[in-house]
Amino acid sequence: MSQAKNLRVVLASRPVGEPGDDNFKLEESALPKPAVGQVLLRTLFLSLDPYMRGRMSDAKSYAEPVQIGDVMVGGTVCEVLESEDAALKKGDTVVAYTGWQSHAVVSARTVRKIDQAADLKGLPLSTALGVLGMPGMTAYTGLLNIGQPKAGETIVVAAASGAVGAVVGQIAKIKGCRVVGIAGGKRKCDYVTGELGFDLCVDHKDAGFAAKLKQACPNGIDVYFENVGGPVFDAVLPLLNDFARIPVCGLINHYNDSATTHAGASGPDRVPLLMRAILTKRLTFRGFIVSDFGAQTKQFESDMSTWVTSGQVKYLEDVVDGLDKAPRAFQGLLRGENFGKLVVKV
Amino acid sequence: MSQAKNLRVVLASRPVGEPGDDNFKLEESALPKPAVGQVLLRTLFLSLDPYMRGRMSDAKSYAEPVQIGDVMVGGTVCEVLESEDAALKKGDTVVAYTGWQSHAVVSARTVRKIDQAADLKGLPLSTALGVLGMPGMTAYTGLLNIGQPKAGETIVVAAASGAVGAVVGQIAKIKGCRVVGIAGGKRKCDYVTGELGFDLCVDHKDAGFAAKLKQACPNGIDVYFENVGGPVFDAVLPLLNDFARIPVCGLINHYNDSATTHAGASGPDRVPLLMRAILTKRLTFRGFIVSDFGAQTKQFESDMSTWVTSGQVKYLEDVVDGLDKAPRAFQGLLRGENFGKLVVKV
Repeated sequence: MSQAKNLRVVLASRPVGEPGDDNFKLEESALPKPAVGQVLLRTLFLSLDPYMRGRMSDAKSYAEPVQIGDVMVGGTVCEVLESEDAALKKGDTVVAYTGWQSHAVVSARTVRKIDQAADLKGLPLSTALGVLGMPGMTAYTGLLNIGQPKAGETIVVAAASGAVGAVVGQIAKIKGCRVVGIAGGKRKCDYVTGELGFDLCVDHKDAGFAAKLKQACPNGIDVYFENVGGPVFDAVLPLLNDFARIPVCGLINHYNDSATTHAGASGPDRVPLLMRAILTKRLTFRGFIVSDFGAQTKQFESDMSTWVTSGQVKYLEDVVDGLDKAPRAFQGLLRGENFGKLVVKV
Repeated sequence: MSQAKNLRVVLASRPVGEPGDDNFKLEESALPKPAVGQVLLRTLFLSLDPYMRGRMSDAKSYAEPVQIGDVMVGGTVCEVLESEDAALKKGDTVVAYTGWQSHAVVSARTVRKIDQAADLKGLPLSTALGVLGMPGMTAYTGLLNIGQPKAGETIVVAAASGAVGAVVGQIAKIKGCRVVGIAGGKRKCDYVTGELGFDLCVDHKDAGFAAKLKQACPNGIDVYFENVGGPVFDAVLPLLNDFARIPVCGLINHYNDSATTHAGASGPDRVPLLMRAILTKRLTFRGFIVSDFGAQTKQFESDMSTWVTSGQVKYLEDVVDGLDKAPRAFQGLLRGENFGKLVVKV
């Protein structure tokens, strides 16, 4: 091991609105030694994902917030440098949740050993954080369990070029659906239709976006995979068909809302209208996170690795080099500036 | 047949806000003769239900609006006066959908013959419009299919003394749940706990209602059976537990909203907050109407008649005498003035 120090990014302060550079602090700390049952890990890849914005706030959510001064959380692919546990040895590759840092000492039981040849079918290690990891499984479990797509139905996928959306749409195509993506900008839209094979893609930055979405869905919408919220949701709502299903896995447009901006959101209050739509159209809205479907991990891994190696599901990664670039890359992610699954090569 | 005329209540004009007397018109018309395949029916009981407010408006919903000058729609129990169909004979009793009128000629295929002894286990004919009819089946199918109550969970039921709510809560008790009702006024609350056996009932007219509901649900809420909306929903939302289920079968507090009052509903817009709750608590909201579960009719009838005759499910009817009283009784229903399932003896 060439480095005697751990480089890490800690939460310096809680953002109000968009996170800025000053909410993060890059610092060095001493490398701890693994005790019995523990391993010392070196981070190879760090996943950057929208949900991390939630962990920076102290509002109640499905997970505890990161405390000020603590390392930012995140999924990682790591190499084992030292092992004090019989289950792992030096040189093993593991998927871990060690966050924004170059090294970590954790209990061996909190990591999962992966074999690049067997588990990833020879695909790059970074895919364990993307199409074959949490975002891919979020797409798979949310679409199949909640969305329940049927051949011939119309599916609308927001953030269609993103880590989750790209997979949702491609699985829906495999299931025989008509798939309409929504993405920001011509480059992303061209990728979504040209590379990923969606039937159409509507640019949410276009003037007249809502009208264009309506035109793209002449038979209405049967499944809307919600991961953005905001104006995209507003455009989708009137197009939903009777019995439409709406898996809710993210609301990136609202992650920078503060309690203050929530309270000041301009009226009218549309909750009664939304409830009326749920009632009269018999809609199903269901929120989920990937761990709710943990029991389906094996099935996911089997299906997805088959689809990826056969070319039925394509993926794109946006790789940022160096942990010091993580804060800026994450800020860009919340603005939709990444193109493909965002990972940091540490 | 003593009466040569049909007495009927037609929609005179579409209400803006609460319906008034002038939205209805009582009139007489000639009695038509049944053609081949038809029957002439005399109405014994007419069911009055909140959904009828929706049919008075021309906003898009799951059913067509009643046209101006047309008879108000509604479920009925009728006697066959003349039959031109082999399947029915004079004197048979049927459940029909002939609306607010004393007589009707309809196709024999649109009615369902009932035997008071066999089908209703000797219970009054009016129960075919209540606990053993549409409201009872709404409660049964919505609670069991969408609410999926588990023993030990906390269930909150709005309009708890009403035709649907009373049944929801009693089935939830049978399933081993802790059941908290919400009703308007001490008399209804006393009935809900004393007669129906709910664990608690909170009066939504009380000052500090939200705080009292919170106190009544120390372990949060796992199932909220939504049939009212408005301030009751607002008090429930923050109490919902992770993975809570919300069957949405009605929104009586909003039925008198007009497009104008919707548009002018005071802000802030809480849709982003509601979506955030759905996401972070992994809530399931699902709208339904009873016909969505039509395949479960036999199972419902078997279970419910058993429960009612054994005394596990009690029911209360609010019987109004005379079709001319229907418009006022219906207006009172929307204000919560009825006490028990509202039926008109015609």
